[in-house]
Amino acid sequence: MSVALRSRPTVSAEETRARIIAVAEEHFRRVGYAKTAVADVASELGMSPANVYRFFPSKAAINEAICQRLMGVLHEMIGAIAAEKAPAAVRLPKMIRSIHEQNKAMLTHEKRIFDMVEVAMTESWPAIDAHCHHCMGVFAEVVRQGVEAGEFGAIDPQAAGNFVFHACAGMFHPTLIAQFCDQDFEADAANLIAFILRALRP
Amino acid sequence: MSVALRSRPTVSAEETRARIIAVAEEHFRRVGYAKTAVADVASELGMSPANVYRFFPSKAAINEAICQRLMGVLHEMIGAIAAEKAPAAVRLPKMIRSIHEQNKAMLTHEKRIFDMVEVAMTESWPAIDAHCHHCMGVFAEVVRQGVEAGEFGAIDPQAAGNFVFHACAGMFHPTLIAQFCDQDFEADAANLIAFILRALRP
Repeated sequence: MSVALRSRPTVSAEETRARIIAVAEEHFRRVGYAKTAVADVASELGMSPANVYRFFPSKAAINEAICQRLMGVLHEMIGAIAAEKAPAAVRLPKMIRSIHEQNKAMLTHEKRIFDMVEVAMTESWPAIDAHCHHCMGVFAEVVRQGVEAGEFGAIDPQAAGNFVFHACAGMFHPTLIAQFCDQDFEADAANLIAFILRALRP
Repeated sequence: MSVALRSRPTVSAEETRARIIAVAEEHFRRVGYAKTAVADVASELGMSPANVYRFFPSKAAINEAICQRLMGVLHEMIGAIAAEKAPAAVRLPKMIRSIHEQNKAMLTHEKRIFDMVEVAMTESWPAIDAHCHHCMGVFAEVVRQGVEAGEFGAIDPQAAGNFVFHACAGMFHPTLIAQFCDQDFEADAANLIAFILRALRP
């Protein structure tokens, strides 16, 4: 009984957090991040701004939570590819392309979400940094399997995972995608992936 | 005599252009790009703004000319390394590191010049794009020599030059340097270069 009493407010706090995130994301998508104040999100939730601030100390903190949700979607996507039964040299390019396509689609079709992510890259770098390291870790694991299978050379998987991630900056980084996406980058992307695989070969 | 008469105004126009660029660069460094108006530069030159506009249609055009001067310095630097008598596998990392160091130093010590370059990356993309292609061309030439010398595999030099440039985006691109430079990126840089050389080997 006392356990239930103690756990109930926790669940409710989690639910409130999730509602704030959902409403704020919808608001940012519709109105834009810069033009939205925490008071707007609070009023749409029928809450006082002070109550929203109990859960998130700033608009940046709400944005960080939304970006974490978006990055979570990306992590699930590459995690699913990593788990496929295919050679590492097939899964790795597939993961690279899927991150590129996802980030490019966000830029092309959801400019306002893209703006939020760009803000997060300035305001909430630790969250973005954690995301980068997650991707490097997934790359490293697939490289490790490729090394074990003899597809790749005797390289350090984590070093190789970091290399793959950094080498793909132009395909992954929102700012660089924005600068290159109106050009014919697809030939460069295929070229980049081919040389990355050359770097990993025995 | 008539030749001298015809050539004199051309020389003077070139000199005026150079003076405008020099004074504007000094002004941008001191006051900042955003806070400087074409009228400020004109007044410092003892010219009317209209006269400055005869040479440069906009502040962005002046900025583009300054960036072209800065990129010219970078081109001379990598050109000199490319001309050294050393294996391609030595010159290539040296060129990569020198671009990285130059761009990083600009960010660290000359924040206002860095801001100008960032503006140029938005406002004057064709000039930046030409710079990127120049670097790719120099990389390609050194790769070609490495292929000829048997240091590298039978790869297409231009494709390899493009790969090297794109793979180094995190080391070259001002925005990415800004995001990573307070972290320990040097280990990642060494790792990246080692894998780039792995990609080029026979």
